[in-house]
Amino acid sequence: MAQLPLEGKMQEIRADAPSLDRRIFLMSCGASIMPQPVVQAMHDYLDLEADVGGYAAADIEARRIADVHTSVARLLNAKDEEIALVENATVAWQKAFYSLPFKAGDVVLTVEAEYAANYVAYLQIKQRHGIDIRVVSSDETGQVDLDALEAMIDDKVKLISATWIPTNGGLANPAKEIGLIARRHGIPYLLDACQAVGQIPADVEELNCDFLAGTSRKFLRGPRGAGFLYVRKERLADLDPVIIDHWGAPWVERDRYELRADARRFETWESNCGNRIGMGVAIDYALALGLDQIEARCQILSDRLRGGLRDISGVEVLDLGPRPSAIVSFRAEGMPAWEIVRQAATRDVIIGVTGKASTLIDAERRGLAQHVRAAPHYFNTVEEIDTTVEVVAGLLKSNHTN
Amino acid sequence: MAQLPLEGKMQEIRADAPSLDRRIFLMSCGASIMPQPVVQAMHDYLDLEADVGGYAAADIEARRIADVHTSVARLLNAKDEEIALVENATVAWQKAFYSLPFKAGDVVLTVEAEYAANYVAYLQIKQRHGIDIRVVSSDETGQVDLDALEAMIDDKVKLISATWIPTNGGLANPAKEIGLIARRHGIPYLLDACQAVGQIPADVEELNCDFLAGTSRKFLRGPRGAGFLYVRKERLADLDPVIIDHWGAPWVERDRYELRADARRFETWESNCGNRIGMGVAIDYALALGLDQIEARCQILSDRLRGGLRDISGVEVLDLGPRPSAIVSFRAEGMPAWEIVRQAATRDVIIGVTGKASTLIDAERRGLAQHVRAAPHYFNTVEEIDTTVEVVAGLLKSNHTN
Repeated sequence: MAQLPLEGKMQEIRADAPSLDRRIFLMSCGASIMPQPVVQAMHDYLDLEADVGGYAAADIEARRIADVHTSVARLLNAKDEEIALVENATVAWQKAFYSLPFKAGDVVLTVEAEYAANYVAYLQIKQRHGIDIRVVSSDETGQVDLDALEAMIDDKVKLISATWIPTNGGLANPAKEIGLIARRHGIPYLLDACQAVGQIPADVEELNCDFLAGTSRKFLRGPRGAGFLYVRKERLADLDPVIIDHWGAPWVERDRYELRADARRFETWESNCGNRIGMGVAIDYALALGLDQIEARCQILSDRLRGGLRDISGVEVLDLGPRPSAIVSFRAEGMPAWEIVRQAATRDVIIGVTGKASTLIDAERRGLAQHVRAAPHYFNTVEEIDTTVEVVAGLLKSNHTN
Repeated sequence: MAQLPLEGKMQEIRADAPSLDRRIFLMSCGASIMPQPVVQAMHDYLDLEADVGGYAAADIEARRIADVHTSVARLLNAKDEEIALVENATVAWQKAFYSLPFKAGDVVLTVEAEYAANYVAYLQIKQRHGIDIRVVSSDETGQVDLDALEAMIDDKVKLISATWIPTNGGLANPAKEIGLIARRHGIPYLLDACQAVGQIPADVEELNCDFLAGTSRKFLRGPRGAGFLYVRKERLADLDPVIIDHWGAPWVERDRYELRADARRFETWESNCGNRIGMGVAIDYALALGLDQIEARCQILSDRLRGGLRDISGVEVLDLGPRPSAIVSFRAEGMPAWEIVRQAATRDVIIGVTGKASTLIDAERRGLAQHVRAAPHYFNTVEEIDTTVEVVAGLLKSNHTN
């Protein structure tokens, strides 16, 4: 077998996360294992805060905190001023979506595998303003049908809003191709990149997206409590932030505030500096490895995992799309998902359960209830993938025997 | 002098924050110094996350994380189900305010020392829905004039919204008395308790407030990135959360979500567990000392600081109200605030600058530009207060001499 991408750096990568030697960790789709530089930066910052207090700490590390915007901008090939730092991807997504000026009859186009957090927001705005939610069907591979999307566009469509890589189902929607359609029709395009950032390159110029939401804790391997919103400069003026404070909108006269000109109008004054710094370190770490390399390795490992699982009798791999993501989904005849996950954990294989409520439309369409998620990341090895397959096969075998 | 409140516990309190011996820390009104149990809990939780990953860590510490709601409820004499945990006091406040169903002509009553973050939100909702913002004047002591407030109430008043202890100016508004008026007229009452929680007792039954926003990082001595919203149970139904996700509003059918029955409808699914745990420990720490004791000690120390400062020629103490808070505000003739703060820091006295943009109406009314904030907390000593006075006097003297 040819050498895997990043294989030459594996020793260093694994040394940066010693717990990886104790367990086979396949839950970067939930919250990943932070590398030591991230953990250390956060410990150090916490100690600095405990020493001098939260505000003095932020002053001392002002440069480093400001650099986090730059790190996110580099990750996305965006400009600093197009980045808002927020608490997580959901908050980022909400700050964009809820700030759009919807009115009755406006249409939002979305995808079948849309994430629950986003869909309930569509439903709320439907109730509040009378918008119409239209779900684009999927093609025979299971990804969004681009022809159907194009055919559904008319003057009423005010937003195309898509989850790039859904939380389960292995799909990677054709985000760039959706972007080309959105751009051609001049329709704002909101991309939920929560599971994509850190797993695959995410270049807003290539994607042609207007808004992109990302989180720190998943494939970027940063801390919880940090995320970011990208807003294309040309779209900033279209958005009246759903919520403001005196950071995004300084109080300049008794009866007047002034919205900041940049994307920081979506931030709040109070921020969690330690988590931001941790996210910045995580992004720099990923960029140093190279997102192309990370993607290539994830692809090989997840393909191998899918192949191995498919070879187990009674296992059904549930992944969709012509080129699946690193999130591998499966179920097994005769053994509930939670039981597979529980027993795998006793064998130090960390995988997770996912339920229909996260992606209701896709789940109902496919008759899915609970199933298993297992997401290889670049820090995993071929041996770990093979062991995982063996463990799952063994569980099912002994379950069948019992 | 009689023994000060908490004097018998000072050795322990100071040992829990070793940096207090290196500097005189008077910036709990910004972000305080966390005690060791808080810092340690956060280090430990971060290490746990680095070991097992963010989701497994949350599972392992599920009980402890759930207990944070209970700690907040105890702090406020509220019910668990009336508490939402959010990122900070601003987010808490926004989630209540923006979720109220305002329409054109509705009136919001507020106070002269209202905080900028809140006031720009009033202005935005004025623009968005045509509400009317009416600022209740202050009485001769500088606190909100309760008779004026009562006189301004009519059918159009849909909210009384007040900052309890403003970010500067030394004021403690009569939150309970405002609450009695609000209750008598059946008007919802939103209380910004950002600077109050951890400094003085905050009992929602005594306060008669319907919504209360608090933060972790100030007088509670918890971490940044954590705060809470109290929503009175009877008011929950009045609020359609301005923003939802699938945690506050599970997606139950393709076209339907169900709002949670409790205040967690204002939370997001993704949360920053380490910060929450830190806040929980901080609250428990404050409760163990006793808020009455903390208040009493803060009062004595801040009165002493005010007295000392007033005795310095050229210093003007700017504090308002019949019974000022622990936030002492002053300015000095011939020396700008930032210069006092900078020079005091070189003498290990940590105080801060506050500007007119934080409380614009009050600042304009009183002709305030930048001035100095210094907030004694219970961990400070009489000696530290006296040293602070000496240091400020010395700075001004040498400034005058130069």
